[in-house]
Amino acid sequence: MEKRSLGARALVFPTPVIIVGTYDANGRPNGMPATWGGVCCSDPPSIAVSIRADNYSYDNIKLHGCFTASIPSERYMVETHYMGLASGRDNNKFESLSLTPSRAEYVNAPLVEEFPVSIECRLSQTIELGSHTQFIGVVLDVKADIAVLDTQGEPDIALIKPLVFDPAKRRYFGLGAPLSKASALSRRMD
Amino acid sequence: MEKRSLGARALVFPTPVIIVGTYDANGRPNGMPATWGGVCCSDPPSIAVSIRADNYSYDNIKLHGCFTASIPSERYMVETHYMGLASGRDNNKFESLSLTPSRAEYVNAPLVEEFPVSIECRLSQTIELGSHTQFIGVVLDVKADIAVLDTQGEPDIALIKPLVFDPAKRRYFGLGAPLSKASALSRRMD
Repeated sequence: MEKRSLGARALVFPTPVIIVGTYDANGRPNGMPATWGGVCCSDPPSIAVSIRADNYSYDNIKLHGCFTASIPSERYMVETHYMGLASGRDNNKFESLSLTPSRAEYVNAPLVEEFPVSIECRLSQTIELGSHTQFIGVVLDVKADIAVLDTQGEPDIALIKPLVFDPAKRRYFGLGAPLSKASALSRRMD
Repeated sequence: MEKRSLGARALVFPTPVIIVGTYDANGRPNGMPATWGGVCCSDPPSIAVSIRADNYSYDNIKLHGCFTASIPSERYMVETHYMGLASGRDNNKFESLSLTPSRAEYVNAPLVEEFPVSIECRLSQTIELGSHTQFIGVVLDVKADIAVLDTQGEPDIALIKPLVFDPAKRRYFGLGAPLSKASALSRRMD
């Protein structure tokens, strides 16, 4: 296999697309897509999202000490993408996109009602990294549309149909075919 | 849409599967899959991986102050999964799996030669989060198999075929169909 150096670049394949939900000082809801983020700890369950200081959401998270992370399904790709082009400073993106901001139960931040999974987070650490600030939030609750739960009540990613992001060429993909259940592999290899 | 509370859980959909490459004190290569991780900063380009303190890789990263992040293609799902079941304390996983550890160019850590993308990282911050420690690494170089580069020399995720992980039911998926190029959406919505 011949390898080529691509230089120092911010790449991992794939990344998720997380809509960070916040209220501004006037209580206006905002949502912005973060592709630099994910789970960072199991106990306490925590997720991280990295945001630039000039994003409106940055001020909102600092103000309220909390945020939500909603996972859009692939049918909301255009709305998701628009949220990354527009700024909450200039307009209410929820109104522009006919999306419904519903107040989270445990934190002072909005969920995107139409998205199948939403995660409520209390800010626990703020890490300065350079162009981006990483906000780490302890998960207080996860809410899921009952339509994406399996018969055991577990969220089923094949029903969620999350966006899968390619950070190199900035493209959205869908979820592919299931390859295997890790637990099945565990039994085989124990 | 009826939503159900699932409680406080560590979930984001999807997560990547990152093979963290390190050497131990004797220079023996190790690789472990991390699904808690991703890009966390654009400038300096940085990635984060979260690891438990009892993982062998934890000691190795602390020892050498660096690590690599290799992205397995879906054809290496079984090898990837095995790396998560075995410990580098007991055996050389590279040998067990007939994978080739090649020394990174800029850091003292091994790359998985057979995997299409490898990222060389110098440890920049260590964040204690609870069950997991988040290691943040500044990317010094990305290396890619020329077979996964497009005609412009850019890595093409559709050729990389990374694993896509479902943290709720711990299953591996492939990459799905391309939905859209973000730049195409930008033009339409500008």
